[in-house]
Amino acid sequence: MSKVIDFQTDPSGYHHWKVDYDGPVATVYMDVDEDAGLFEGYKLKLNSYDLGVDIELADVVQRMRFEHPEVKTVVMQSGKDLVFCAGANIRMLGGAAHSHKVNFCKFTNETRNTFEAAEADSGQKWIAAVKGACAGGGYELALACNYIMLTDDSTTSVALPEVPLLAVLPGTGGLTRVTDKRKVRRDRADIFCSIEEGIKGKRAKDWRLVDEVVPNSKFADTVAERAREFASSSPKADVEKGIALTPLNRTIDDKGVHYDLVEVEIDRAGRKATITLSGPETDAPASTDELVALGAEGYMLKLARELDDAILHMRLNEMDIGLWVFRTQGDPEKVAAHEAMLLDSDDFWLSNEILQYWKRVLKRVDVTSRSLAALVEHGSCYAGVLAELLFAVDRSYMMEDEFEGDNRPIATITLSQSNFGRYPMGNDLSRLETRFYGEPESVTKAQAHTGEALEAGEADDLGLVTMVLDDIDWDDEIRIFMEERASFSPDAMTGMEANLRFAGPETMETRIFGRLTAWQNWIFNRPNAVGETGALQRYGTGVRGEYNMERV
Amino acid sequence: MSKVIDFQTDPSGYHHWKVDYDGPVATVYMDVDEDAGLFEGYKLKLNSYDLGVDIELADVVQRMRFEHPEVKTVVMQSGKDLVFCAGANIRMLGGAAHSHKVNFCKFTNETRNTFEAAEADSGQKWIAAVKGACAGGGYELALACNYIMLTDDSTTSVALPEVPLLAVLPGTGGLTRVTDKRKVRRDRADIFCSIEEGIKGKRAKDWRLVDEVVPNSKFADTVAERAREFASSSPKADVEKGIALTPLNRTIDDKGVHYDLVEVEIDRAGRKATITLSGPETDAPASTDELVALGAEGYMLKLARELDDAILHMRLNEMDIGLWVFRTQGDPEKVAAHEAMLLDSDDFWLSNEILQYWKRVLKRVDVTSRSLAALVEHGSCYAGVLAELLFAVDRSYMMEDEFEGDNRPIATITLSQSNFGRYPMGNDLSRLETRFYGEPESVTKAQAHTGEALEAGEADDLGLVTMVLDDIDWDDEIRIFMEERASFSPDAMTGMEANLRFAGPETMETRIFGRLTAWQNWIFNRPNAVGETGALQRYGTGVRGEYNMERV
Repeated sequence: MSKVIDFQTDPSGYHHWKVDYDGPVATVYMDVDEDAGLFEGYKLKLNSYDLGVDIELADVVQRMRFEHPEVKTVVMQSGKDLVFCAGANIRMLGGAAHSHKVNFCKFTNETRNTFEAAEADSGQKWIAAVKGACAGGGYELALACNYIMLTDDSTTSVALPEVPLLAVLPGTGGLTRVTDKRKVRRDRADIFCSIEEGIKGKRAKDWRLVDEVVPNSKFADTVAERAREFASSSPKADVEKGIALTPLNRTIDDKGVHYDLVEVEIDRAGRKATITLSGPETDAPASTDELVALGAEGYMLKLARELDDAILHMRLNEMDIGLWVFRTQGDPEKVAAHEAMLLDSDDFWLSNEILQYWKRVLKRVDVTSRSLAALVEHGSCYAGVLAELLFAVDRSYMMEDEFEGDNRPIATITLSQSNFGRYPMGNDLSRLETRFYGEPESVTKAQAHTGEALEAGEADDLGLVTMVLDDIDWDDEIRIFMEERASFSPDAMTGMEANLRFAGPETMETRIFGRLTAWQNWIFNRPNAVGETGALQRYGTGVRGEYNMERV
Repeated sequence: MSKVIDFQTDPSGYHHWKVDYDGPVATVYMDVDEDAGLFEGYKLKLNSYDLGVDIELADVVQRMRFEHPEVKTVVMQSGKDLVFCAGANIRMLGGAAHSHKVNFCKFTNETRNTFEAAEADSGQKWIAAVKGACAGGGYELALACNYIMLTDDSTTSVALPEVPLLAVLPGTGGLTRVTDKRKVRRDRADIFCSIEEGIKGKRAKDWRLVDEVVPNSKFADTVAERAREFASSSPKADVEKGIALTPLNRTIDDKGVHYDLVEVEIDRAGRKATITLSGPETDAPASTDELVALGAEGYMLKLARELDDAILHMRLNEMDIGLWVFRTQGDPEKVAAHEAMLLDSDDFWLSNEILQYWKRVLKRVDVTSRSLAALVEHGSCYAGVLAELLFAVDRSYMMEDEFEGDNRPIATITLSQSNFGRYPMGNDLSRLETRFYGEPESVTKAQAHTGEALEAGEADDLGLVTMVLDDIDWDDEIRIFMEERASFSPDAMTGMEANLRFAGPETMETRIFGRLTAWQNWIFNRPNAVGETGALQRYGTGVRGEYNMERV
């Protein structure tokens, strides 16, 4: 699996999804082309999916929010007759490297979270209309929808057969959503997750696995009715027309990835990448009309899209690059102005969508299993949303005082109101609240300096950076940090960062990325699942996996 | 490592610990005998520990609470000059099977939790008096104490060097306590966990890694002073004399483990164990004086001790036994009366200690990585504390109506007030609150039936059992369940149960057993740590581990 995985697509290139738009209701059909897998060696039978299918789905979700803001209800259903979705393709999983499996699950989890959150964030409620077998990752798709309708016929059931069938977990949120979202009683959940054939009809409703069971003959009508009802009771404002998410201007070469506003420079020997974000050239839009007219060329949206793509590209295609170093260059006042325009008009749909998108991009940073650092150099523009990056990374270094031969504007950090709750982490705290988990008074203290261009001394006093360094120490300290980081075991780094980044409270979201994912990753390393006689390898051979029966 | 590990010990058999009692202050000296490791093949140098050291520590903690209730402050310090504690022994870890590593860490975690909670539960506050190197598991010992004093000399530091040195995590709560208990800022935690040599003196205090730094010359005096201060301001009532924790009456043979009140019957072919708890023969003590006079022979304490030992024995010595089935037989009214006596006198120190101990034993059940079931048969005595077992297991089955030829009293379940908060899980919810996470009204409904002997129909209506079965179905249903369970991959079971058992909120405790432990277990399976050229194998050879640098 060494070809470059591209996360950019658009409806003209879809192999697996079709969307019908009908005013406030959209219908998303999953109709996987079994011959259009992302890699060789497997067929995507029975609406099973691989990363390529999920990349298209993520695009559907994203375009729904920007290109089709008129939509208030989205019905997800199958384009095939007898199956809703059979889940992640097992042969693909059986053949994939551990690192691909883990990153594949992370991306699918992020996509599930995105359409799950679309109701709260954007007023787009997703309904799963389940007809036919809905198993494993298929039911996890339904679980991430906020309403599940099940037809009542002999072939339709919901199931999480991973444990009995494959010796792995329903790891794309399945176990966690069953207990935390659907609130299924734990002994019933235990039974449900042990039954290969799943649960049908009334019992599925009684156990809260679905919201509504409908006779087969009335299913299509009832789904349509429910979709209209949800749409008409939606608090979402009416919007006539969206904006087009035009293709990114991107070049990938051996040195890195190059966009208009984001530059990723890869240092293979040093196993690190430098990700430089540019500030805006132009002034902020003067009105929401202007924001709409700019569309995908508007600074805040364009930067988010480029950074999002860069993160995904680097995660899946550059796994040996263990350290990402963020830099910014530009005018911090202009960054602040562009963000302020959105904050001031956040009741306007597009402003809201761009801010919500930044929330998602920043969450992607949080759960990225790379060591993350940020350099606050002279000439940088860490204001508001970009300052948020400083609180997402593991360590930040800031230039103090003038550097010889460097006549860029002195390094500063400018907080905006957005740093105090606009972009919450998965744990529902702001990054500053997480950072100052032990000293909430430091959040208040920092907040009092909102809007000020804080130089190194002040930023250090407020605890906003890890370390401030002058001209004498800068190069050496940073070189030593980078070399040290590159020498550590990547696995230990991943485990350490997954713990240190999420202090304090947990939410369903962090539990999925923390507890559930960590156990799944463990199982993905165990011979009972992935060994030669393990269940994933044996799947489809008619022979069950052979297990070492020792309990650990 | 196939010898039987015995969790029973007493001070006469200690190799590694010494305790001085001085009225309300006790001093616990860690002075590990390097030649007295539990297994062959390593020396416990520099106060490093293995499971044997921890078994003794657990005994110290337990006896402190029952035999020395006069103690209000416990000072933990080293019996050696230059080292506080070097953490878990690396050669032991390098040589241990994955299953031993995982179970070793679980037991040490439980012991840390026990002395950490001694302040809140029993008014015994543990202080760590750190002199000399305090690294890895050594600092994790200190972190579980509720006050850390550090001497200010050139050789004394606190450190978590696992990541840089060993490519594993500080997995005995280290990472979680640094962020959640000590509330160290996450970028500082990142630095601290990357520095092999650790952090000394003032910076350790400034970063909240310790509570107090004291000049070396004044250290002993200041520690003594602080211990007296904490003791005199303790809210704990004065108690003159404890009770003796006399040796358990236990026989281990090939068929199982046999105690006076607990019978563990092992079915190796079926990979299951049946654990039968007997109800009391005698009436409840009529007074707290009688409770004290009974001492370790009192029903509630004796049963807790036997069950606790059985759990630990089965966890570490019988890893192929993947299913534990709990049974009870006896008079439920007598069980209820014994528990009620403690509940009614819970302001009396011994009543409190026994109830607190049951809380710990039940928490051990929760985090046991075995499939757990309970059978509510005729003649059983699931009342109060024993009914709590029904809500700890993964599934419960209850006999309904009379069974042919069975003239035992009809199966019932009797709730007591204790089922509504007296024995919280690690997530700080009662087991019934966790069970009914989606329907809190069901907790209220069940509570209205407190004290009633509920037969199968009522228990089923209240949602207290997974399934009720009559004479016709009982044998088959249970046999099928057991056979099915025995056929599944143990790893998948462990991961599934770790997710389903802990719905909803997380606490520091559940985050240690969930997030931290799961990531550590993953790393314990990765070649970078445990492979031939991994860090654990290479440790002490002077050659660093060789790592696959791919990020997962």
